[in-house]
Amino acid sequence: MKNSQQDTAEGILFTDMYQLTMAQLYYRVGLHERLVQFDHYFRNYPDYGSHKAGYCINAGLEWLLDWMKQAHFREQDVAYLRSLKSRTGSPLFGDDFLDWLRSHGDFSGISMWAIPEGRVIHPNVPLTIIQGPLAMAQILETSLLNHLNFQILIATKAARIREIGRGQVMLEFGLRRAHGKGGNAGARAALIGGADFTSNVGISAVLGYPPKGTHAHSMVQLFISLGMSELDAFRAYADNYPDDCTLLVDTIDTLKSGIPNAIQVFEELRMKGYRPVGVRLDSGDLAYLSIQSAKLLDAAGFPDVSIVLSNNLDELVIWQIITQITQEAPRYDVDPDRLISRLVYGVGTRLITSWGEPALGGVYKLVAVENQGQWIPAIKISESPSKTPNPGNKRVWRLYDQRGKASADLIGLEDESPRQMQQIILRHPTDHTKVRSHAAEDIPEIEPLLVEVLREGKLVYELPTIDKMRSCRQADVERLDPGVRRIMYPHIYHVSLTQRLWDLKQKLIETALSPE
Amino acid sequence: MKNSQQDTAEGILFTDMYQLTMAQLYYRVGLHERLVQFDHYFRNYPDYGSHKAGYCINAGLEWLLDWMKQAHFREQDVAYLRSLKSRTGSPLFGDDFLDWLRSHGDFSGISMWAIPEGRVIHPNVPLTIIQGPLAMAQILETSLLNHLNFQILIATKAARIREIGRGQVMLEFGLRRAHGKGGNAGARAALIGGADFTSNVGISAVLGYPPKGTHAHSMVQLFISLGMSELDAFRAYADNYPDDCTLLVDTIDTLKSGIPNAIQVFEELRMKGYRPVGVRLDSGDLAYLSIQSAKLLDAAGFPDVSIVLSNNLDELVIWQIITQITQEAPRYDVDPDRLISRLVYGVGTRLITSWGEPALGGVYKLVAVENQGQWIPAIKISESPSKTPNPGNKRVWRLYDQRGKASADLIGLEDESPRQMQQIILRHPTDHTKVRSHAAEDIPEIEPLLVEVLREGKLVYELPTIDKMRSCRQADVERLDPGVRRIMYPHIYHVSLTQRLWDLKQKLIETALSPE
Repeated sequence: MKNSQQDTAEGILFTDMYQLTMAQLYYRVGLHERLVQFDHYFRNYPDYGSHKAGYCINAGLEWLLDWMKQAHFREQDVAYLRSLKSRTGSPLFGDDFLDWLRSHGDFSGISMWAIPEGRVIHPNVPLTIIQGPLAMAQILETSLLNHLNFQILIATKAARIREIGRGQVMLEFGLRRAHGKGGNAGARAALIGGADFTSNVGISAVLGYPPKGTHAHSMVQLFISLGMSELDAFRAYADNYPDDCTLLVDTIDTLKSGIPNAIQVFEELRMKGYRPVGVRLDSGDLAYLSIQSAKLLDAAGFPDVSIVLSNNLDELVIWQIITQITQEAPRYDVDPDRLISRLVYGVGTRLITSWGEPALGGVYKLVAVENQGQWIPAIKISESPSKTPNPGNKRVWRLYDQRGKASADLIGLEDESPRQMQQIILRHPTDHTKVRSHAAEDIPEIEPLLVEVLREGKLVYELPTIDKMRSCRQADVERLDPGVRRIMYPHIYHVSLTQRLWDLKQKLIETALSPE
Repeated sequence: MKNSQQDTAEGILFTDMYQLTMAQLYYRVGLHERLVQFDHYFRNYPDYGSHKAGYCINAGLEWLLDWMKQAHFREQDVAYLRSLKSRTGSPLFGDDFLDWLRSHGDFSGISMWAIPEGRVIHPNVPLTIIQGPLAMAQILETSLLNHLNFQILIATKAARIREIGRGQVMLEFGLRRAHGKGGNAGARAALIGGADFTSNVGISAVLGYPPKGTHAHSMVQLFISLGMSELDAFRAYADNYPDDCTLLVDTIDTLKSGIPNAIQVFEELRMKGYRPVGVRLDSGDLAYLSIQSAKLLDAAGFPDVSIVLSNNLDELVIWQIITQITQEAPRYDVDPDRLISRLVYGVGTRLITSWGEPALGGVYKLVAVENQGQWIPAIKISESPSKTPNPGNKRVWRLYDQRGKASADLIGLEDESPRQMQQIILRHPTDHTKVRSHAAEDIPEIEPLLVEVLREGKLVYELPTIDKMRSCRQADVERLDPGVRRIMYPHIYHVSLTQRLWDLKQKLIETALSPE
């Protein structure tokens, strides 16, 4: 795409056609400025084929806000819409509507409540609540979903990989296999979700994280093609990066050539007073090779040199590597825990694409409409009860148990306050037989999750830094029950409705289903 | 991301850190302007879990060229690199190298041969050949792979869906579930690969395709919330879009409410002299519902109204729908072929994410280095023989058989010409026992696949329009053997080496493996 076309492709027209045709219809019937509320939420955790997530990590909000701030119908956008024709050649959009878009087509009328980035989130909980004039709230849908669905997806995958990697350093390496420019949003989400650094230089620059990397096979190969050797290539690298010397050791033969050559170069570095950093293994049996590499490095007096692993890693592969090391390392007189604690994970394709489930099914549903000064809760009956949205203007609270662990997310109406209730009733969202009740004093901590972000287009929330999102994610994950944190077949976390929201939902369903 | 940060994140720094550290190393050892050749190719067709592709569709080149044209090290990019520190706090990049980047850090020295977009492509065939000064050819790697891997992936998925959809109109609907801005590149690739239109307005504007769409459930729901009905919503839509009236009929109940209301509105349109366009089904058993909808529409005198299907469609789901219609429609006195020929497919998530295999493993491998005016073929031995790249400067020819079907892609050396050979020998890339030989006169057509695109940065190729890419794709797919076109378990297409390339490869492998 040419640079000059970018503003067209990524501005306000970064939306689906039906948002614009609906907006014109609303304009024509006088509903375009009617206040409405949409909820953004997802219905199911990502299911990666063999295993489902037990929690997700929220991400994407700040970039959505950046987009909303700049997106508006420019003269050229309106001119483009004016050029579109119906099947019989008449203009699809009228000048009246286009004039309105030109003068009112921005997000300055939108109010938003949202759960902050970095927080643990669960299905059916409103993550982002949009209130605003119908036409623009509708046009917002596509871009909102695009921004939030993808970053949640990647932050969640990153959190899982971090969890299985026992907190060892994790590097995001996926730009070359990412979905175009989505690689940038993905790298950001990976940092929020658990990666410590990314190899992506541009996004590192934008976010203020130092980019990380080693070198490629092609460097060794080039030296060899010119009549030199792997050792020469390693030496050249060490000469240039004596403080940051991580060597890729599998171009020729990891144990016969790469590691011995790396050790020789590390010894030369040590003699010059430098501290070598690491070796990287990018092929073969990574568990076996890391045991043998550790053994050779230990014997040469480099017990602290990191071993960076890469090559289609994901949470399952890392789990298998750690398991295999735990079982096999003692046989080679290598301490498995010490070896595991020197590992670094370079994770590419399977993180940046959320391999196994490459999309989050987040939705944006109409839940209330203003009518004559009153908010009217809206409902859409679905044949599958779990797909019927929770109506009305809502809030969400996280309840913690005596251990300090999160025990449930409670969705209620905006004017409710669980802290004021003597008895807190938790209703299953769809199954009327499942009701739990807790005395308020048995719930030591009740935390509201939604914060006010935009008030009629104005930012009323201090956006956290990525560092803050990262510590928030870590704290939230630690407050999950270990069963919910499991990588395979996790316990199901409770997401419940208050009695009043449950009653409202049932009433609306009954009315909708009753014969007119 | 803020607008002001976009040029940083998406310009020349849209690369991996190691490309820059390697480039500095090459600068320091005086190799940065050494001419080298890299090949871009993929090793395996996408394997979507249960079924593997039998061919891919090339895409992404024009956007890569656009990127290369504008990307260069701006003052602020160099300033950012200057700020990066080693582990002990010294500058990671030296001023000498940064000055060189500032003055020489663009792609004006790059030459490129490539297979045009829209063509059928196969594994191990060089799709893009880059020749140029080492430092910049290396820095190009990440962005080249990012641009090409993703668009090939999506164009391929689109071609499969088109194939199974029997050429019926296919709409790309996936922006909300796409990987951020990657949704734009994906929509473009979907058009090249087989989608007729996209709902993505911005990309439609950029590419000059009319965007398509219907309306959302929320429109019907909104009317109901305000005390009106589905019929009122349909009428409002028909009033506004009398020439383009496609109605979403599953908000309440497809057969009891949606279709009858649509028919009523269609009758009103007909009385006013308009021709209704379609209904859209977005939930439930799409095969059953389309049979029943067709029956009702036929009975009401609307046999030509389209039935648009959507909801997690992909090639397998569409295949099942068509199979079910073929079996079940006669039972309801509906002609299955006529029904199938009025279907339109709206394909979202599973197309735009290439569900089942969300990344193409395209690679970029060093295959030759210039030394004292001579090109030296480079090789990298891999433990798995199929991963050892084919060395040297190569060309590719497609051989067609007497039926006019493509029978093999032949990779040879740049100075070879199969047309001049009396006997054409086709060697399996790795298995020395597999050799076929054809008399040249038995091969009626031999087509070179690579075209010269860039000569030292200058575009020497006329980029085709998307329309031309689409007809090229269609022609290429039709010239594949039906076995290769199969959606499940396709025949394996032959990709072969010439005898001379085979000999060169074996010689380099022997040399590399012989003790020094």
